[in-house]
Amino acid sequence: MAAPMNKRKHDDEKKDLVSEAVSEVSSNKKQKTSSESTASLDDPLTDFNGFAVEKILSENSQTKTLFVQGTFDGSESKAVVLLEKTAFRTNELPVLMSKETKLKASLKNDIYGVYEGLPMPELNGLKTTVIYPATEKHIRKYTYQQLYLVTETWQDYQQITLPYLNEQRFSIQWVFNILDKKAESERIVYEDTDPELGFVLLPDMKWDGKQTDALYLIAICHKRGIKSLRDLTADHLPLLKNIKEKCLTAVKTNYNIPPEQLRMYIHYQPSYYHLHVHVTHLKNVAPGTQAEKAHLLTDVIENIELMSDYYQKKSLTFALRESDGLLAKFKQAGKVLVTSISVE
Amino acid sequence: MAAPMNKRKHDDEKKDLVSEAVSEVSSNKKQKTSSESTASLDDPLTDFNGFAVEKILSENSQTKTLFVQGTFDGSESKAVVLLEKTAFRTNELPVLMSKETKLKASLKNDIYGVYEGLPMPELNGLKTTVIYPATEKHIRKYTYQQLYLVTETWQDYQQITLPYLNEQRFSIQWVFNILDKKAESERIVYEDTDPELGFVLLPDMKWDGKQTDALYLIAICHKRGIKSLRDLTADHLPLLKNIKEKCLTAVKTNYNIPPEQLRMYIHYQPSYYHLHVHVTHLKNVAPGTQAEKAHLLTDVIENIELMSDYYQKKSLTFALRESDGLLAKFKQAGKVLVTSISVE
Repeated sequence: MAAPMNKRKHDDEKKDLVSEAVSEVSSNKKQKTSSESTASLDDPLTDFNGFAVEKILSENSQTKTLFVQGTFDGSESKAVVLLEKTAFRTNELPVLMSKETKLKASLKNDIYGVYEGLPMPELNGLKTTVIYPATEKHIRKYTYQQLYLVTETWQDYQQITLPYLNEQRFSIQWVFNILDKKAESERIVYEDTDPELGFVLLPDMKWDGKQTDALYLIAICHKRGIKSLRDLTADHLPLLKNIKEKCLTAVKTNYNIPPEQLRMYIHYQPSYYHLHVHVTHLKNVAPGTQAEKAHLLTDVIENIELMSDYYQKKSLTFALRESDGLLAKFKQAGKVLVTSISVE
Repeated sequence: MAAPMNKRKHDDEKKDLVSEAVSEVSSNKKQKTSSESTASLDDPLTDFNGFAVEKILSENSQTKTLFVQGTFDGSESKAVVLLEKTAFRTNELPVLMSKETKLKASLKNDIYGVYEGLPMPELNGLKTTVIYPATEKHIRKYTYQQLYLVTETWQDYQQITLPYLNEQRFSIQWVFNILDKKAESERIVYEDTDPELGFVLLPDMKWDGKQTDALYLIAICHKRGIKSLRDLTADHLPLLKNIKEKCLTAVKTNYNIPPEQLRMYIHYQPSYYHLHVHVTHLKNVAPGTQAEKAHLLTDVIENIELMSDYYQKKSLTFALRESDGLLAKFKQAGKVLVTSISVE
């Protein structure tokens, strides 16, 4: 698997922060923060001796992760620790489900028993990432950010969103590098080179490229200048239909997954403003598949068929993180309540 | 918290199977399968001694669960074991992050360190549910079912879905019991009694009623006969708008959560055919929020405003499980490929 490149930085806001931290480590490049390395630990830790928890930055009971801020032995430098329960490894099952795993009964009724299972520690390790010393930026990055639901009318798009995008001039050079085969060309799964209807299909960074029921591909169109859903009209129907048909065929050919088991969708807001379509296995309820973010490609096509200017008429609703510059613009325009209520 | 009632059975297909098994145990009612209890274990297990894994029924690396079928000591009776990693308990953090937790370094680079953390077993137990002896029905229930994406045109709705619903005559007596205060009346959070525009708002069974950032409520309309999204036209705009406004106010009043942090949506296909609206906290990416299932209430209202017969024109796309009777009907009609490819 290729190491995450700059694409990573432009990726979905709900990216897997733990994997990202790990790949930052593996990428082995000099960290900018190493100027502070006087306080850094040269030797790896062997336990959490001397660690004091200061604050829980974020927790997720569904994915079983916990991000913590703390200090070691009263040092002034902060540490950020990312803890994550690991998925079961099926090759270890014979030992995990043997006399080595003790069971403490909490309920027993007829055929049903509920227990606390206590496996050998080696079979039940936590993925633990320690960032030390951590900067304010690290702390901010791993702190849960409040989400705000924003409903953007077409007028809001023209008066708030579009000026913001133009002002920010987000670079999408890395997208052009992919389309021009200057980067990641070895990762391309399928390509249609037609400049009007064509696209490049390649694995998303979140997918390991192996486990087919976690399949996650991205189709990036060759045509430049289509920023998002908001630009789509009947003129783009041939492009959208071409992406849909050829992606489904390419996935069937390459991964033997039939069309009925694939979800194809467009994000709004997208993480970068060059039209691309997400292709995920239906079983993979990936981050960014929720109704307030994902628009099924089949729905997009049909909405435009029903009404050519559907995406220039319809309000679009999406969630923005507290730190998002676009949210600030919507707040300034009085479109979102400014007072936030802390929910924890 | 009230014990799950018959509502549970009508609930979302993606319900939490582990919690459900636990509540089946706690409900302490005589199991029908107890006729087979000669093979049942009277004493709780103390470990997995003698257990042989036969088959992995289902696994989920996101939620870190694993469902296994096996036998004890060569007995012919099958056992189903549900293993689930548990969420971190913050009250145990001081011990979890102390010298008691050993760290095995796998990577160390500048300020970043990646470790395998090995806590004391007592702090890292697995939620373990054993069903033994398990029937074929148990095995089927916990076996992963292939999902199929189906795109239903309005014609398909009239020719396939509607006849199927009429033929099945799914009972929604339990919904009427709620609306008539014959059941669950103590759980009602808010009610508008108007027979045309009114609704009852109450917590979904999946929510513990406490943790506000996991809020999950259901608004069930008083008016009878609106089966689903497919029935909605401009006539229903006053009802939909009333539900939207009054729910947002009720949630603000009762739970102090502002409108920008709430997701309101309608499922298609729904789990029962009497119009109801889901209300979840934006932070809670609950099962059933995906684009192929959830339709934001704000989008539904606006689609109908743009085109009164939108939901009688538009194709609707949704996923059905392999065992769903409706899927069989779509297959018979040649609308879904019959050959399934096993994905594991």
